Amino acid sequence: MERRFDEELNTLKEGLLRMASLTEESIILAVKSLKDRKEELAREVLKKEENINLLDIEIDELCLKLLALRQPMATDLRFITSAMKISSDLERIADQSVNIAERSLELINFPLLKPLIDIPRMANLAQSMVKDAINAFINRDDKLARSVCQRDDEVDSLNDQIFRELLTYMMQDPSTIRRAVDLILVGRHLERIADHATNIGEDVIYYVKGKTIKHLWEQRSNKNP
Amino acid sequence: MERRFDEELNTLKEGLLRMASLTEESIILAVKSLKDRKEELAREVLKKEENINLLDIEIDELCLKLLALRQPMATDLRFITSAMKISSDLERIADQSVNIAERSLELINFPLLKPLIDIPRMANLAQSMVKDAINAFINRDDKLARSVCQRDDEVDSLNDQIFRELLTYMMQDPSTIRRAVDLILVGRHLERIADHATNIGEDVIYYVKGKTIKHLWEQRSNKNP
Repeated sequence: MERRFDEELNTLKEGLLRMASLTEESIILAVKSLKDRKEELAREVLKKEENINLLDIEIDELCLKLLALRQPMATDLRFITSAMKISSDLERIADQSVNIAERSLELINFPLLKPLIDIPRMANLAQSMVKDAINAFINRDDKLARSVCQRDDEVDSLNDQIFRELLTYMMQDPSTIRRAVDLILVGRHLERIADHATNIGEDVIYYVKGKTIKHLWEQRSNKNP
Repeated sequence: MERRFDEELNTLKEGLLRMASLTEESIILAVKSLKDRKEELAREVLKKEENINLLDIEIDELCLKLLALRQPMATDLRFITSAMKISSDLERIADQSVNIAERSLELINFPLLKPLIDIPRMANLAQSMVKDAINAFINRDDKLARSVCQRDDEVDSLNDQIFRELLTYMMQDPSTIRRAVDLILVGRHLERIADHATNIGEDVIYYVKGKTIKHLWEQRSNKNP
C-alpha cells in the first residue's frame, strides 16, 4: 500500500504540474493577444481555461480520495491539503487570464492607445512567480517560495506606475478613456495573478515548515490601486 | 471520541460563523465609509481584517488537526475540506473590503462625484449572498446555495451598469476621471466578493450533494468588465 500511495502522490504532483504549465501559458497568451492584437490568441486562452477547470476538479477529487482512503499524517497530509489550495489558486489565475483575454478582444476594436511595454513586463514577472511557486512546492524549497512572496512588491509597484501613466493619458485626451480603463483593469488582473502566486508561496512555506506565514505580506499589497 | 469529534465540528462551525459575520460587517462598513465619506469607518474595516486573518489561520489549523486526528470519512471529510475552502474565500472577501476602504480613504480627499446609489445596492446584494452561502453551508441547504450562485448574474449586470455610467461621466468631464476610476474599481471589488460567495455556494452544493457544479457559472460571469 505504501508504494501505491507514493504512486498516487506522484499522479497528484503531475496533475498540478500540468495545470500550472497550462496556467502559465494562459497568462502569456492573454498578454500576447493584447500586445499583438490577435484575436485567435485570446480565443486560445478561453479554450485553455476549460482544461484548467477540468484539471482543478480532477485534482480536488484525487485529494479527497487520498484523504479518505489513505488517512495521511504530517507532511503527506499537508502536501495534500496544500495541493487542494494550490489547484484552486491556479484555477483563479486562469480566470484572470480569461479576463485579460476578454479585455484584449474588446481593445482590438479600437485604435492602439500606445505600444505596450510595462504590461508585458508585469506579465512576465507574474508568470515567473507562478512557475517558481509551483517548483518550490514540488521541490519543497521554502527559500524559493519566500522569494516569490517578495517579488509581489515589484508587481505592485509596476501596477502603480501603469495606473498613474494611464490616468495621465485619460486626462490629456478623453478619447482614450475607454481604452485606458481597459488597460487599468488588465494591470489589476496581473496584480491579482501575482497575489495568487504569493498565496501559493505562503502555502508552500506552510507545507515545508509546518508553520503559517499567511497574511504577512498583505498589508503592503493592499495599498495598491 | 464520537462526542468529542462532534464538539470539534461545532467549534469549527462557530468559528466560520464568526468569521462570516465579521466579513459581512466589513463589506457594509467599507461601502458605508465610501457613501458617507467617513474615514473612521474605513479604519474599522482595516482593523476587522486583522481579526478575520487570525480566524482564517485558526480555522485552517483546526481543520488540519481534525483531518489528522479524526481521519473523517464521507460527509464529515467533505465538511472539513469545504470549511477550509470557505474560510479562504471569506478571507479574500475581507481583502476586497479592505480594497474598497482604501478607495474610500482616497476619495474622501476629493469633492463628491455623485451620490452613490447603485454601489450600495450592489454591496447589499453581495453581502446577502455571503450571508446566505454561509447559512446554506451550516444548514446543508443546497437550494439556498443554488440561489446564491444564480444571484451572481444580478451583481454582474449592476457592475456593468455602474461601469458604463462612470465611463460617461469621465468622457463628459475629464476632471472626474480619477474619482470615476476609483469607483469603477470599487464595482470590481464588489463583483469579486459576489464571485467568492458563488465559490462558497458551489462548495456547499458539493458538500451536500457530493458532486461538483464548479465552473458552471463561470462563462457568464467572466464576460463582465
